[in-house]
Amino acid sequence: MAIILYDLVGADGRRFSSNCWRTRLALAHKGLDCETVPTPFTAIGEIGDGSFKTIPVIDDGGTWVGDSWAIAEYLDDVYPDRPPVLGGSDGRQHALFVQNWARSRVSSIVMTMIVEDIYAQLCPEDKEYFFDSRSKRLGRDITGIQEGREERVLELRERLEPMRRVVAETPFLGGEQPTYADYVALSPFIWARTVSPFALVEAGDPVHAWFQRILDLYDGLARRNPGYDW
Amino acid sequence: MAIILYDLVGADGRRFSSNCWRTRLALAHKGLDCETVPTPFTAIGEIGDGSFKTIPVIDDGGTWVGDSWAIAEYLDDVYPDRPPVLGGSDGRQHALFVQNWARSRVSSIVMTMIVEDIYAQLCPEDKEYFFDSRSKRLGRDITGIQEGREERVLELRERLEPMRRVVAETPFLGGEQPTYADYVALSPFIWARTVSPFALVEAGDPVHAWFQRILDLYDGLARRNPGYDW
Repeated sequence: MAIILYDLVGADGRRFSSNCWRTRLALAHKGLDCETVPTPFTAIGEIGDGSFKTIPVIDDGGTWVGDSWAIAEYLDDVYPDRPPVLGGSDGRQHALFVQNWARSRVSSIVMTMIVEDIYAQLCPEDKEYFFDSRSKRLGRDITGIQEGREERVLELRERLEPMRRVVAETPFLGGEQPTYADYVALSPFIWARTVSPFALVEAGDPVHAWFQRILDLYDGLARRNPGYDW
Repeated sequence: MAIILYDLVGADGRRFSSNCWRTRLALAHKGLDCETVPTPFTAIGEIGDGSFKTIPVIDDGGTWVGDSWAIAEYLDDVYPDRPPVLGGSDGRQHALFVQNWARSRVSSIVMTMIVEDIYAQLCPEDKEYFFDSRSKRLGRDITGIQEGREERVLELRERLEPMRRVVAETPFLGGEQPTYADYVALSPFIWARTVSPFALVEAGDPVHAWFQRILDLYDGLARRNPGYDW
């Protein structure tokens, strides 16, 4: 029986959630069948017993798990015979560092470059919630916040240097094969690609080449998601 | 027979090289005896067959290896029955990411806060070489470059956020026990502590607590090195 994944959705069906993509790729990595349930922000409270505040949430034959990191741990615990996604201590600590790096140093600045693009592509019932919650989070009305992104993207590209040096040397952050470290690093890129024509990285950058390799994984799972081709 | 480590030295015997400390801790991690040969910058060319341009260099019973990363790989290859320092693919990739992060995002800015302090504590014969090579690397005469470090350290502390979040959760970057990821992240801190009274991190910061834990490892190996107690 396929695992059910509650996956954030935009107005025309786009799956733009960075956290949901981590889970989507973790499931593919382990070769587990998955059916997604497109879910607007404002319908998250209706999932399962109504206790979930965020997605991804999975329903694995009646076992419900929320939070992308907890899901990754769950999948390795319950399906130990399939390829490890976090792996042992070294793999887990690697993914933990990269996740914290991606969240604190990458997604935070990317948000200021794409938040209006996200807003434009939301389901109508999500717009008010998103506008208010993101304006609060960013400390200002999000209207006009993308202005100046052509300059800020240069700062972003500097911040990507640790990752750039690794993927210039090995195909994936995980080495010859991708691991969960790659999926957490992917988050800001797939998030942006799905909603925004603004290129975070350019052809010729080793990070761009890495991103293309991830888009090709699992029969082009992430590439088949509607998005902007940069 | 102890492994010989050619280790950079300052005027009063201080060992301030970030790269040599990686090797020193890697040797202790593996429980290998080590004797250090204090070496000024200007004597590096006299090591072994004269082909080495940088240190650390080790002499393991007639096998010479240079470059801290190559030494870590060598130690795991040649002493597989001792605790792994890089470990398998996951551990290696973890250390590679953290090393690239520490070099490109941490050491680069730390250099601007301590380079004059290093200069002040060099062996006399190293001063001209160091002044010229570092001025060239930094694109300006190093005199006065530390000015404004009280402001720049705030930027540094923001950059440390990925690491801070990990060591707030697990004692070491490597998890319950330190791995080579910890030793490469340590580099800028031990480098600065050895030569400069200027505190990169303050008590109460999880990164500070982690740094103290590393200083205590292996019977206080790094703490016993003369330095400033911050």
